Parts: sequence; structure tokens; C-alpha cells
Amino acid sequence: MPPGLKDVAARAGVSIKTVSNVVNGYVHVAPGTRARVQEAIDALGYRPNAAARQLRGGRSGVIALALPELQMPYFAELAGFIVQAAERHAWTVLIDQTDGQVERERNLVSGLRRHAIDGLIFSPLALAGGDLARGEAGTPMVLLGERVWHGPADHVAIDNTAAAGDAVRHLAGLGRRRIAAIGAQAQSSAITAHQRLAGYRAALSECGLPYDASLVVAVDSFRRADGAAAMAALLDRADPPDAVFCFNDLLALGAIRTLLDRGVAVPDEVAVMGFDDIEDGRFSSPTLSTVSPDTARIARLAVDLLAERLGEDPAEAAAPRELKVKHTLMLRESTLGR
Amino acid sequence: MPPGLKDVAARAGVSIKTVSNVVNGYVHVAPGTRARVQEAIDALGYRPNAAARQLRGGRSGVIALALPELQMPYFAELAGFIVQAAERHAWTVLIDQTDGQVERERNLVSGLRRHAIDGLIFSPLALAGGDLARGEAGTPMVLLGERVWHGPADHVAIDNTAAAGDAVRHLAGLGRRRIAAIGAQAQSSAITAHQRLAGYRAALSECGLPYDASLVVAVDSFRRADGAAAMAALLDRADPPDAVFCFNDLLALGAIRTLLDRGVAVPDEVAVMGFDDIEDGRFSSPTLSTVSPDTARIARLAVDLLAERLGEDPAEAAAPRELKVKHTLMLRESTLGR
Repeated sequence: MPPGLKDVAARAGVSIKTVSNVVNGYVHVAPGTRARVQEAIDALGYRPNAAARQLRGGRSGVIALALPELQMPYFAELAGFIVQAAERHAWTVLIDQTDGQVERERNLVSGLRRHAIDGLIFSPLALAGGDLARGEAGTPMVLLGERVWHGPADHVAIDNTAAAGDAVRHLAGLGRRRIAAIGAQAQSSAITAHQRLAGYRAALSECGLPYDASLVVAVDSFRRADGAAAMAALLDRADPPDAVFCFNDLLALGAIRTLLDRGVAVPDEVAVMGFDDIEDGRFSSPTLSTVSPDTARIARLAVDLLAERLGEDPAEAAAPRELKVKHTLMLRESTLGR
Repeated sequence: MPPGLKDVAARAGVSIKTVSNVVNGYVHVAPGTRARVQEAIDALGYRPNAAARQLRGGRSGVIALALPELQMPYFAELAGFIVQAAERHAWTVLIDQTDGQVERERNLVSGLRRHAIDGLIFSPLALAGGDLARGEAGTPMVLLGERVWHGPADHVAIDNTAAAGDAVRHLAGLGRRRIAAIGAQAQSSAITAHQRLAGYRAALSECGLPYDASLVVAVDSFRRADGAAAMAALLDRADPPDAVFCFNDLLALGAIRTLLDRGVAVPDEVAVMGFDDIEDGRFSSPTLSTVSPDTARIARLAVDLLAERLGEDPAEAAAPRELKVKHTLMLRESTLGR
């Protein structure tokens, strides 16, 4: 007969209830106790029957993280931080890449139970408030990113508009007067782009600089190739800009590549500012000035909020919370020079 | 009463068996039929009971992809390609980041059933052959990477030793005579590093160049910061190298950053070669010459192998297969100049 909860409890010298708490991934077990139970589980080769446990309404110890795209380094870094933060709760994180597609995001939200997960951390691109209302699944969810504000679940984000404004104020403070923007997007769901554009416009106005719509370049996606092409279009103008604020670091790295290809000095002739503070920009040539959203903190807060929700009686659940994380400017060679 | 299979079948005008095939994620359902069934499922709000289905031994339509680290762009790109390839089978891919830790890899292999997945694509760092033998879970698995050869499951990889040799032969062909290597690792499990080092040594010998162990720099990990530090150590020597082969692109991008910081011209004074062909190196300054492993093809093959195994009678399963994918050299500015 395979070993049971009772055997594990006997070996670890704890109650069956404690073993069950560990197995189900509950948070409030002392680390020493958890380690002892884990040892006994390993030694005996105890294997909880997840399917049966799920039918009984237990916990799987698994959470899901749904992101638009892992090939965007920002999301890959965010995923890494969330996996780290989840370790403190002994959770396994399964990552689901949605590509921002409505259908996949909808399946995710409506089909939560299918994957036997305890909770979901979700950075939506396509779905907005109504679509996200807790379905019958009732699985706790924490939202990330700019798509949804005051939605049906806890939400962690930075103030994008203010952060974009800070980036533009830095460029204006260096004496730049023709500050372009790369990263506008037409579709109404592109909230990130809209907020960063709003911050750009507000900061220009504050600094007494005119808003010139022809200096704002729209992109299909936030990748290096889009930034490179957008920068080429700006340089082809009769009156090219003396600075450019890119709505993410990949766009900025692509823009810098075009500038160097054309023999334009960065930052002497054109200063470049990114957004995200991905690792690439710390080692690029020139290194990239950018907005740092404190991604590690966002990840920790999201995981801790989810843990709180899991410990909560659903009948007495607190109202959804909005947490704003501080951003900082990381100023490097692409605006300050060497 | 919630809608059942019967209701979905009636609405879609298909048999109950067909609805069940769609719900269970089987591959051989005509796209038109699948769409009709999906429509009926959506319209009726039918929700299959995954836990019950799992106990009956059905399929979840979910596969897992286990990778060491998503913050390594190579793995993030690989994950993206696997998600794409899995779409053709209408599979959802859940990604599990192992950080290459023995314990997490072991849990993954022994606890496959816990997450109700149909199959696993796994790039191990810690586990080797014996640990990977199909456990009681019996879930089909495809292995990626260099850690395991002729193991208990299908395996897709490139010929690392040959690829590393090609990189070094390219540098020697440019007339470089003091070719350093960055990326050696001491631990016996670091098969990737060992194979690339073996390729480096073999190519040096073929090209009639002496092997100088002091030109081989060991690193803790394959990140930009390791490459930057290793390059600094090489430049501090009385007789610095005139070329460097880095065991991945991140090491190479870090090395280039150090070279430019020290005012060393790339490639005129030191040529730099990477490995992986991640997107970063196509936009860096200088752009990066590298070995391209055709990651998209690796992903497609892994997914197709897994699909074959899922369609197979376990009692008549074919022996594990080894598939080798071709690599190519992508030659750019870091060795050829502008």
C-alpha cells in the first residue's frame, strides 16, 4: 500500500492536519515544520492524489501567471521575479502566454479550474473590466499592467503617465527642444501606449514645449525592429528631433541601432530614453537611460496579495485593492553621455 | 442543471464522442467541426469537469514546458516558439521555471500527474538519465538541450561540439591567432559548457593553433555580467587575445560592453563570437556574430514528437528517438566589421 498522510505525520512527528496544510500549500506553517514534513514526504515517497484532492476542494499548491509574451524581456524578467516570490509560499508557478489574444485570455479567465490552480496573476492586454469579472470559477486573481483599473480584482501597477512625464522632463532638462516619441498605438485597447503618450504630452506642456503630432511615431508592436524603423522615419525628416522618448526599452534599443547606423551621435545629437529597465539596456552601447518600474516589487506585491486572498473567507472578502508601485529614472549614457 | 456533453452535441449537430474529443484536446478533429463545437460550448457555457475527467484518464489539452530560466532570452524565445507550435495542436502550454534546481526538476518529473497535463517538454540542467526514467506518471516527455543523450525519452538538440568548432574555425579563418573562450564551467553537470569547450579545443587543434588553458575563462553563469567580468580579466593580461568565443550571446554582449568601455575596437582588435542567435545580438552595436541553432525548428520538432507519442499505444511505444537539428553561423559586425 502506498504511504498515506498518517505515515508522513508519524515520521515527521506532527499532526495529520499539519501534513495536510503543507501538502495543500497553505502559508501559515512554520518553515522548520514545513521542512520536516517535506523530508518525511520525500523519504516515504508520499504522493498526494491531486485529482481526488481537487474534487474535495483542496489546494494544488500551483498558481498560474498569464502574460502577453515571454519574448518581451520585461515580461520574462517579471516572470522570474514572480517565480522567486512564489517560492516563499512554496508555490509552483505555471506560466501561460496569451499573446494578448482575446480568445486565449477569455479561456484563461473562464476556465481557471481546468488546470487545478489555486490562483492567477494576470497581465491582460485584450480583456477589460467586464470580461474579467470573477466567473463561477471563483479563483482568486491579481491583475498587473495598465489594461484594467478599478476592475473586479486586486491590481498592482505603476503610474505610467507620471513615469512617462518624468522621462520627458529629464530630456527637456538636458536642453532638448524637439523631443520625439516612439510607441503610439491606434487601437483603443493599447492603454500602455495611451498613458505614456499622455504623460509625454503633459510634460511637454509643463516644460513650455509645443506638441508636434508629426514627432509622434506609431508602431505595430513594442519590439526592436519597430523602434529601428520608427527612428529611421524620424531621421528622414527635414528637421529631425534632438531627443526621443521610446515607450519601452526594446524600441529604444532599436532606435539607437538606427542612429549609430546613420552615424548620428548618441546622446550628443539625439538623446534616447527608454522604459522598463530591462537588463539589455545596462550592457548596451551606449547604456540606456530608462524608467525603472521596480519589477521585483511588483512581483512580490502580486504574490503577497494572492496569498492574502487565499487565506480569506470568500464570504467576507475585502473589496478589490489598487496598489501603486513607485518608479525611478535610471540615467545612463544614452542621455548623459560617457 | 448545467449543460452537459449531450446538450453541446445537439447544438453543434455532432456526436457526443466528437464533443468529447474536442474537449479532451485530441488532435484529429477537423478544424470546422472543432470550431462548431467550440461555438456551442461558448454559447451554452458548458464547462467540462477537469478533475473528474482526469480521474477517468482523459486528456486536458494542456502540456507543460519546463525550462531552467526565462530571464535567459534563449529560453524565452524557445518558449515562444513552443507556444506557437503547440497552437497547431490546440494545446495550451504551461511553463514551469526550474532554475535548474535538482529538487524542482525531480518534483516535476515525479509529479507530472498533479497538474493534469498530457505531456512534458523538458530542458533539464540538473537531472540526468537515471533520474529521468519514466516514473509511475507515465506522461510522455520530450527532452531538449545537452544535459541528456540517449536517455529514457525522445530528445531534440543540435550538435554543440560541432557548432562551437564552426565558431572557432570562423575566427581562425579571419587570421586570429589568440582565440580566448568565455564560458567554461567546472561542475560535471554543465554539459553545455563542456561540449562547447570540447568543440573549441578540437577546432584550435585542427587549425594548428596551440591550446592555452589560461585563455579559457570560467563563469558562474551565462549572463551579461559574467561575460563583462571575464573579458576584463582577459584584457588585464600582458598578452590579451585577438578574438573571443563566448559560449552564449549574453556572455558575448557583456564582453563587448567591456571591450568598448576599455576603448578596444571590435572586431579590429578583438573579434567576438556568441552562441544562440537571440534577438539582442541583431540590434546590438556592433551586431553580434553567433551560432544560430534554429530554435523555431527545435520547438516544432519537440511538439510534433510529443503529439506522436500522445497518439501512440503505450504498450507498443517506439524506442526513444534522438533528433539532431542543423545549426548555422550568423556572421555580423562583431567579427566582420561594418
